[in-house]
Amino acid sequence: MKVFTLPERTEWKKLLARPAIDAAALEQKVKVILDDVKVGGDEVVKKYSRQFDGMDPGDLRVDENTINTSEQGLPDELKQAIQQAAANIRAFHEKQLSPVEMIETMPGVKCWRKSVAIEKVGLYIPGGTAPLFSTLLMLALPAKIAGCKEIVLCTPPSADFAGGAGLHPAILFAAKTAGITRIFKAGGVQAIAAMAFGTESIPAVYKIFGPGNQYVTCAKQLVQKDGIAIDMPAGPSEVAVYADDTANPAFVAADLLSQAEHGPDSQVVLVVVAPTLAQRVQKEMEKQLLQLPRKQIATIALENSKIIIVRNQDEAIDLLNEYAAEHLILSCAHPEAVAERIINAGSVFLGNYSPESVGDYASGTNHTLPTNGNARAYSGVSLDSFIKKITYQQLTEQGLKNIGRTVEIMAAAEGLQAHKNAVTIRLSP
Amino acid sequence: MKVFTLPERTEWKKLLARPAIDAAALEQKVKVILDDVKVGGDEVVKKYSRQFDGMDPGDLRVDENTINTSEQGLPDELKQAIQQAAANIRAFHEKQLSPVEMIETMPGVKCWRKSVAIEKVGLYIPGGTAPLFSTLLMLALPAKIAGCKEIVLCTPPSADFAGGAGLHPAILFAAKTAGITRIFKAGGVQAIAAMAFGTESIPAVYKIFGPGNQYVTCAKQLVQKDGIAIDMPAGPSEVAVYADDTANPAFVAADLLSQAEHGPDSQVVLVVVAPTLAQRVQKEMEKQLLQLPRKQIATIALENSKIIIVRNQDEAIDLLNEYAAEHLILSCAHPEAVAERIINAGSVFLGNYSPESVGDYASGTNHTLPTNGNARAYSGVSLDSFIKKITYQQLTEQGLKNIGRTVEIMAAAEGLQAHKNAVTIRLSP
Repeated sequence: MKVFTLPERTEWKKLLARPAIDAAALEQKVKVILDDVKVGGDEVVKKYSRQFDGMDPGDLRVDENTINTSEQGLPDELKQAIQQAAANIRAFHEKQLSPVEMIETMPGVKCWRKSVAIEKVGLYIPGGTAPLFSTLLMLALPAKIAGCKEIVLCTPPSADFAGGAGLHPAILFAAKTAGITRIFKAGGVQAIAAMAFGTESIPAVYKIFGPGNQYVTCAKQLVQKDGIAIDMPAGPSEVAVYADDTANPAFVAADLLSQAEHGPDSQVVLVVVAPTLAQRVQKEMEKQLLQLPRKQIATIALENSKIIIVRNQDEAIDLLNEYAAEHLILSCAHPEAVAERIINAGSVFLGNYSPESVGDYASGTNHTLPTNGNARAYSGVSLDSFIKKITYQQLTEQGLKNIGRTVEIMAAAEGLQAHKNAVTIRLSP
Repeated sequence: MKVFTLPERTEWKKLLARPAIDAAALEQKVKVILDDVKVGGDEVVKKYSRQFDGMDPGDLRVDENTINTSEQGLPDELKQAIQQAAANIRAFHEKQLSPVEMIETMPGVKCWRKSVAIEKVGLYIPGGTAPLFSTLLMLALPAKIAGCKEIVLCTPPSADFAGGAGLHPAILFAAKTAGITRIFKAGGVQAIAAMAFGTESIPAVYKIFGPGNQYVTCAKQLVQKDGIAIDMPAGPSEVAVYADDTANPAFVAADLLSQAEHGPDSQVVLVVVAPTLAQRVQKEMEKQLLQLPRKQIATIALENSKIIIVRNQDEAIDLLNEYAAEHLILSCAHPEAVAERIINAGSVFLGNYSPESVGDYASGTNHTLPTNGNARAYSGVSLDSFIKKITYQQLTEQGLKNIGRTVEIMAAAEGLQAHKNAVTIRLSP
C-alpha cells in the first residue's frame, strides 16, 4: 500500500479519486445482446448461455421440486448459518416498514403518503468464482417483506452443477429460505435483457437489482434509459478504515485484506493519525496475506490502495466524508461520537469487534451499498428500494373553500387559467 | 379526445403507451454544451445565456438584498398565497422525518439506520412562459427540512426583468420564503453543467432536481452517468381521471383541461364505465376550452388524449394500474376503497372536491412526480429525495462470539477466506 503523509486538503480530491470506469466502451457489445434477446427471447438467452456459461441450461425455469430438495446436498452448519443470517436480515429490514403518514394541512384538506410495493422486481445474482447466496438473501428478503408480488431471480447456470439443477445448492437453499420460487438459469447481459423486456419464460419486471461484472453493469445502465429502474450505479467494492491507538493492528490488517480479496479492482483506504500504527498494520498485512488462497487478487488490489496519515481526528473525519466510502470501519476510541460526524458512507462499522464481514453476511444490515463515492447521494439497498411511496389528498367541499383562493391566485400568477378554473368551477354557486 | 370502447386487455399496452422520447437525438448537442461549461466555467454559462435567454446575466449570483426586497413588486394576495402553500408543503414534508431505527438482531449485535441529509443539492427551475415559483417551493422546502447544507438554485434570467434582478419577483419571493439564498441566473443545459461540475461562482452539487425541457432532461441523464444523482427520469405531465355516475361532468372536464394546458405533449386519459358520462364530459370540455387563454396548447394535447370506456370498476382499476399515471383523480363513489386498490400512481386525488390543481400548488403533497409510467417503480420527490440512509453496526466482543460462527461458515462457503479471518482473528484466544 502506498503511504501518503499529511497531504494538503487541496490534494484530497485527486488522492481519493477512484479509477474511471469507461462503460461507454462496452456499450456497443452490450447493446447487441440486449437487442438480440428483445427479439429472440428464450432461445437467444440459451444461445448466450452456451456461449458464455459453457452449458445449455435446458429449461430456463428451475422447477420447485429442485428448489425444495436443494438442501440435501448441503452441510447442516451451512444451512443453519444461512437461516441465522436470514433471520437477522429479516429483523433489520422489518424495522424499516413505515406507517401511513397522514396530516390535515388545513381544515378539510387531508394529505397522506403510503408505501406500496413495486409489483414486479428482478434480482440478479452473478456466477463466478463463488456462489453469492449472501447477496441473494440481501435482495430477496427485503423484496418479500415489502410485498412485491412477482419476484424473479436470474443467475447463470454452471457446468460444475450440470448433473443437478445447474445451480449451486446453496443458491437454491438461500432462495428457498427467502421464499423465492421463480428462479431462472440465465446470467450476464442476457439475464438483464430478459428481465427488462420479458421472454417466453422470464417475466419483464419494473426494477432490476443486483451486482455483476462490467457488462452487467452496463446492461443495467442501458435498460434504465428504457424506463426500467435499477438499484443503483455500481462500481468496485471498497472499504475505508479509520484507526487510532486503541485499534488492534492485526484486526485492521484483516479488515483491509478482506476487502482486497474481493477483486483486483477493490479499493482499500486506511486513515491514521499515527505513522507507527500504519507500519504495524502493514507488517500484519504482509504476514496474513501469505495465508490467503486469494492472495494474488489481494496483492493486485493492495497495489492501488492507500494509507493516508493525517494531522488529527478532525482532519480524518473530513477526509472520510470527502471519500464517501461504501464500507467505513471506525477502529477508534469513542466510535459513536465519530460516527455522529460521518455524513457520507454506505455502512459504518463501530469499534474493534465489528469487522466488515459481519455486515457482508449476517449482522442484518444490507450489503448492497453505494460505491465509487455515490454514498454522497445514494443509500444502500433497503426496504425502501422495493417500494414506492404514493401520495394522496382528499378535500371536503369546505376544505376546497379553505384552500381554493390560494390555488386560484397561484395558478393565475403562473399563467395557468385551466388550473384555476378547476377550483373556481367547483366553488361556483 | 379519441374514444375507445371496451378495448380488450391484450390491447391495453399499446393503447396506454406514451409517445417515445428520443433523447439520443439531442445527446450530441447537449454534450457539447456540458463539455464547454466544464472547461470554461462562468464565462461559458454567460455566453450561452446571451445566446439562449437573450440577455447577459452579469453577475451570475443574485445578491441577498435583491432576494430580500423582491416582495416589493408583488401583490399582497400572491405573497399570502405563496406563504400558505409553503406552510402546507412544509407541514406535509415534516411528517416524513423518520427516527433512527435500531434493533439488536442478536445479543450484542446492534444495527441501526439513520437519515442523513445530502450535503449539496442543486435545484433547477425552468424559465419559459410562466414563473414556476410553485416548483421552487416543492424542491426547496424539503431540501431545507432535510437539512441539506448547500442548496444551490439555478433559473434562467429573462429579458422581461432586465431592469431588475433578471428574475421574476415571485421566484425570488418563493426562494426567500423557503430560505434559499444561493440563487444563480443560469438556465438550460449550461445550468445543469454548472451544478454538476462547478464553475467559479456556481458550486458543484451531488444531486440535481427539477423539471425542464428535453435538453435539460437529456443533460440530467448525461451527468447522471458521471455520478451526479438526479431526482427522477422526466417526461411530459399527465393525468388519468376515473369517473362514475357520481362525478360532475363539468368538474371532470375542468380537470382534464388543466392537464391539457400544460403543454402540447401533455397526456390526458379519462376512464369511465358509462358512455353517456363520456359524452357529457366532452360537451363540457368543448364549452370550457373556448374560455382558455392557452386553448391552442390544450387543443393539441387533447388530440392525443383518450377516453376509454371499460366494462366495470374492476377493469377500470386494472387499467389504471397498468397505466401508472403521474396524477390520478378518482371522481367516483367510495374513492377511499378504490384508492386502496391503486398500486401504480404518483399522486392520487380522491373525490369530487380534490382537483389536481390543489396538489400542484398548495395541498401540501409534492408536485414533482413520476411520469411516463415510471410510477410503477419510482416515488415522487419527498423528504426521502434529499437524504440518504446510512446503516451502522456495533458489536460487543460477546456479540461477535454469538454471530462469528455464522459469518465464518458463510464466508468459507463463498470462498472468501480473508472475510472469515477478520472474524477468526478477533475471536482467537
